[in-house]
Amino acid sequence: MIPKQQVNMADVARRTGVSIATVSRALRGERGVSDKTRLRIRAAADELAYVVSPEASSLSGGSTGRVAVVVPRINAWYYSSVLAGIENELRAGGLDTLLYCLEVSSQREAFFEQLPLRRKVDAVIVVAFPLTRQERIRLEEIGVSVVIISAHAGHFPSVNIDDQRAAEQAVGHLTRIGHTKIGMIRAVDPEGLAYESDLRRLAGYRAQLAKAGLAEEFVVAPPWGTEGGEHGMELLLSGPDVPTAVFCFSDEVAVGALRTLRRAGIPVPQSMSVIGIDDHPVAELADLTTVRQPVKEKGTAAGRAVIELLGGHPPAERAAVLPTHLVVRGSTAPPTSGTVHQRT
Amino acid sequence: MIPKQQVNMADVARRTGVSIATVSRALRGERGVSDKTRLRIRAAADELAYVVSPEASSLSGGSTGRVAVVVPRINAWYYSSVLAGIENELRAGGLDTLLYCLEVSSQREAFFEQLPLRRKVDAVIVVAFPLTRQERIRLEEIGVSVVIISAHAGHFPSVNIDDQRAAEQAVGHLTRIGHTKIGMIRAVDPEGLAYESDLRRLAGYRAQLAKAGLAEEFVVAPPWGTEGGEHGMELLLSGPDVPTAVFCFSDEVAVGALRTLRRAGIPVPQSMSVIGIDDHPVAELADLTTVRQPVKEKGTAAGRAVIELLGGHPPAERAAVLPTHLVVRGSTAPPTSGTVHQRT
Repeated sequence: MIPKQQVNMADVARRTGVSIATVSRALRGERGVSDKTRLRIRAAADELAYVVSPEASSLSGGSTGRVAVVVPRINAWYYSSVLAGIENELRAGGLDTLLYCLEVSSQREAFFEQLPLRRKVDAVIVVAFPLTRQERIRLEEIGVSVVIISAHAGHFPSVNIDDQRAAEQAVGHLTRIGHTKIGMIRAVDPEGLAYESDLRRLAGYRAQLAKAGLAEEFVVAPPWGTEGGEHGMELLLSGPDVPTAVFCFSDEVAVGALRTLRRAGIPVPQSMSVIGIDDHPVAELADLTTVRQPVKEKGTAAGRAVIELLGGHPPAERAAVLPTHLVVRGSTAPPTSGTVHQRT
Repeated sequence: MIPKQQVNMADVARRTGVSIATVSRALRGERGVSDKTRLRIRAAADELAYVVSPEASSLSGGSTGRVAVVVPRINAWYYSSVLAGIENELRAGGLDTLLYCLEVSSQREAFFEQLPLRRKVDAVIVVAFPLTRQERIRLEEIGVSVVIISAHAGHFPSVNIDDQRAAEQAVGHLTRIGHTKIGMIRAVDPEGLAYESDLRRLAGYRAQLAKAGLAEEFVVAPPWGTEGGEHGMELLLSGPDVPTAVFCFSDEVAVGALRTLRRAGIPVPQSMSVIGIDDHPVAELADLTTVRQPVKEKGTAAGRAVIELLGGHPPAERAAVLPTHLVVRGSTAPPTSGTVHQRT
């Protein structure tokens, strides 16, 4: 039943005529191995389809076989999907996943000051939250591999979507079907941290308005989540001039916006079009038009990058960008004459 | 910024006049310490509000400071919520969370045969999946603390809701408002494993029907998930006699059932009442009546039980049962005369 590991470090050592310790050092990218020897070992390992296993690799000392995943939340669709992709990929590579959830800034500060990761892990995957310069330096200091998901930090390899392009896809759909008054509900960290995805999606919204020759912006910035979406739509509806379509930071925000519209008796899409980003499972249920992003695949790609780094390879792409695409459902339609229609 | 650890094992040792090693052994519940000494050490630790920290505890050898969490899925609301509760509680206790997702039986078999947990963790939390006798014995053999969530296994401490009672609460609501033809959509593991929650909820459905003097059962058993719910409702609608209300294993199943009803043009709740279990975030969106279970709290309670076990205490409750309660929304109503009403 159990697929036995067919190849081990001793096989690679035998094939290249060096010691097991040298193979281990070479495959983990450590110093003390010439480039020529490293290349020979790498080639032999590739030929034998040898995957670094933590048990084997720790024979020579350094490796723990563990990778830390640092997230700001666990029980939200986005984060649990990323985590599922990471865990699956790491486990396939023989690595264990250590999970750290840092929800508020005080936890984050304590974490980066104490750095409990020291000597505990071979690599760290940081999901989505913006690192301060100080935090980035602390991570560099502990000398393990680092991969960033849904953000960028220094020279660390990263996995992202193009957030600006995703916003342009969403707003472009609205301009194409004829909307000229388009709002945006952003999603802001309650503690005021600037998330890259929010800023880049705002830039995409603006770029697409400019491209369509629309000068008028309707932007609100409530705290993220469904309640933020509810509140954001209330703000947009209470303005002197109300848009006919709203681009929401995410599907969860859009679901909140839809709730407010339902309560206000404003029919969707007849009197208001709504679009999100994600293709969260709730989007299908709510018949929500959205821009799909491959979330679990982000985790898989980051896991693969870690395995490559620990195997002594640079990752195939230093800054991987996964594709997004428009999914048209029932929450968007061309604008009508402006009358509020009765719900059907 | 960082709350410094105020108290350490040396303080406890000083206070009780024993060695640090003895404190460590006593607090981790190891042999070689008399009951009298253990009680004195425990009392001193409690007085000093000392929490076992893995670094301190590993000074004496045995402890790793890590707890393995074994789940059958990560990116589903239920599991990510349990996981959030566990991680939060363990981190507060100075313990790290190692995550293992075993989705299919081949992974499960390999995992329990190879037992990668050996020497890696101090405790294991198993979430929801049914352990075979063999797997239970393997877990006992590695000699670490084990806590079970949403199931029972041997003498391991467990955290559950009363699944039968939750089902009785759901079906009781339907009988109270006058339904006499009540169906159930179960949720079955695609590989045929018998999940305790499914069996106990089925028992609750039957018990409540019996209590109401209803002899007629309408039970379908599709694979779990939203698609299973869609299919389950199709099966119920295609029978010779159709119920007026349906109890679904979970809210995700109920959402699938609602989709089928919408496609079939059957108005909810006028022609069909639907109730789930969970109070999944989607339940509010779908205006679904449900029985709420405290999911994150299950994780918190299991994390606390692990910390108690590792501190040498038996957990406060060996088989903790958390409460559930009915949340009435718009998807249930008294049965009508049987006419299919138009949707409003």
